[in-house]
Amino acid sequence: MITTKKKDFYKNKKVLVTGGLGFIGSTLCIELVKLGADVTLIDSLVPDYGGNLFNIDPIKNKVKVNISDVRDRYSMNYLVQNKDIMFNLAGTLSHVDSMRDPYTDLEINVTSQVSILEACRNNNPKIKIIFAGTRNQYGKAQYLPVDEKHPLEPTDVNGINCNAGEYYHLLYNKVYGIRACSLRLSNTYGPRHQMKHERQGILNWFLRQIMNGEQITLHGTGTQIRDAHYVDDVVNAFILAGASDNVWGEVFNTGCTPISLKDYVEAAIKIYRKGGYKIIPFPENRKPIEIGDYIADYSKINKMIGWKPKFNLDTGLKRTFEYYDKYKKFYW
Amino acid sequence: MITTKKKDFYKNKKVLVTGGLGFIGSTLCIELVKLGADVTLIDSLVPDYGGNLFNIDPIKNKVKVNISDVRDRYSMNYLVQNKDIMFNLAGTLSHVDSMRDPYTDLEINVTSQVSILEACRNNNPKIKIIFAGTRNQYGKAQYLPVDEKHPLEPTDVNGINCNAGEYYHLLYNKVYGIRACSLRLSNTYGPRHQMKHERQGILNWFLRQIMNGEQITLHGTGTQIRDAHYVDDVVNAFILAGASDNVWGEVFNTGCTPISLKDYVEAAIKIYRKGGYKIIPFPENRKPIEIGDYIADYSKINKMIGWKPKFNLDTGLKRTFEYYDKYKKFYW
Repeated sequence: MITTKKKDFYKNKKVLVTGGLGFIGSTLCIELVKLGADVTLIDSLVPDYGGNLFNIDPIKNKVKVNISDVRDRYSMNYLVQNKDIMFNLAGTLSHVDSMRDPYTDLEINVTSQVSILEACRNNNPKIKIIFAGTRNQYGKAQYLPVDEKHPLEPTDVNGINCNAGEYYHLLYNKVYGIRACSLRLSNTYGPRHQMKHERQGILNWFLRQIMNGEQITLHGTGTQIRDAHYVDDVVNAFILAGASDNVWGEVFNTGCTPISLKDYVEAAIKIYRKGGYKIIPFPENRKPIEIGDYIADYSKINKMIGWKPKFNLDTGLKRTFEYYDKYKKFYW
Repeated sequence: MITTKKKDFYKNKKVLVTGGLGFIGSTLCIELVKLGADVTLIDSLVPDYGGNLFNIDPIKNKVKVNISDVRDRYSMNYLVQNKDIMFNLAGTLSHVDSMRDPYTDLEINVTSQVSILEACRNNNPKIKIIFAGTRNQYGKAQYLPVDEKHPLEPTDVNGINCNAGEYYHLLYNKVYGIRACSLRLSNTYGPRHQMKHERQGILNWFLRQIMNGEQITLHGTGTQIRDAHYVDDVVNAFILAGASDNVWGEVFNTGCTPISLKDYVEAAIKIYRKGGYKIIPFPENRKPIEIGDYIADYSKINKMIGWKPKFNLDTGLKRTFEYYDKYKKFYW
């Protein structure tokens, strides 16, 4: 997946992963352990946020697990010390939750980032940080595909806070010289995503419904375009970015072949041979925050560090179904 | 200053002004009282933030003064009730303080805005809100003059937080239909600005130094361009915006004739016939957050609601000196 040079980069590197028991965080930790990194992961295990100790089962004896909240300034002050790289994935991405409780979203996605960055500034300014941003920061696409220069006009509280959280990283890079960059991720699916509720990512939720033999409900026409991003591709983007010299102070879109929600669901149903879907009009209360189609222009990250997605939808879906078939009891 | 129609608009209107004991807030309250509004002002009187009970001396028996912190959700829930309009000026604008203590800046400029907007959503969604933004949200100008489409790339923590605070207003307008707009103010000077420290506005600080017969220190070349904005012009922009129908969901720059800091200081010295200035190289730690020249393009607010600045620099400076000569003991 990555070149030998980049592979060697992580050998014996001290790496910190925030949100390390979550979906992408845990998958990243597993890859980092493979590459020989000395991994410490932080997770708050806040209920419903996706942290799950089973996610790191394959590496449970090979990583240091630190359960704490990144909002806690004092534990962060200690934990960032003597680390070479931090993958900063702690945060929440729930549109619905952020509108219902903007205070918590603000704390989790902004205050915590200040706490992390201040800890680095005061205790380890030589650390490198790769921040997990989101396409949600753009809001409704004003043109397609969306490049990194697209205006940031989010349609929910979560997007506002992610913008602030990301921008704090760029500011600390500019003003204090703390090397930081951001990857703005598209909708991601794959193994290790929480499967208990639909508020943190609809793509895996659809897969759960299919596995349960349920009827999926699509809103509007079902033809909204998304980049359905397989988690291993996303992890590879983090790995590559962390091992690169030319990314600091930059933001990058990741993405893949765009697909309509309907086509995604149909492909998944075809593979798993269960479930079904129906299409209903958009609920009134969702209309103002619906973002329409989203397609990422990921040419910048491709040009600058050579990243591109490798997994096609069929492979990604099959691997995901296999994982949850095997480990369903830890996720349902 | 404003048309008869706009003047009549405020008669008996219930108006809430947050930060109402501050520099612009108090000047606005005085104007609103003149226009017949029923004014309640909120101020936290946090030391150093500029709140000063003497600021409202001319109207002290004609307004309701509520000392509380806008971060306090419960008092806000009560105070927004039965109000027609809110001028939302609570906040801090100190670049230096925001870098030294990002947590407090975040609370004051973001958490508080969420608290205000949630209070409105839950208790008075029909209120109209005019938010005080800042040119600091743009960061270093990428072109001049800066219009409202200019990228928002602030060079300090305060700018990040002001962007989030403003964007919350636009989001609540879009999603919940709470009428809100933002005025992005330039550097403002005039009577009622706090004069105890230089961290909240350099223009008035220069005037203090001149009145004290001190030597002003300008950094770099002294030729950095700013819009030196007289406070009555800013207040007029708020008054006009609050009485307009076509401003909701919009952001507007205010501005005036641009001037170099050196020319501003020279004009002030010429009027007051005291003090002096010297020019020294930029301190290393200020370089990364220095924004260079700033000139606002305020054609949008001019076209949409007819606002333009009325006061020339000489008049503004003379009035400011007169005020502080008379009331020095309340500010020094």
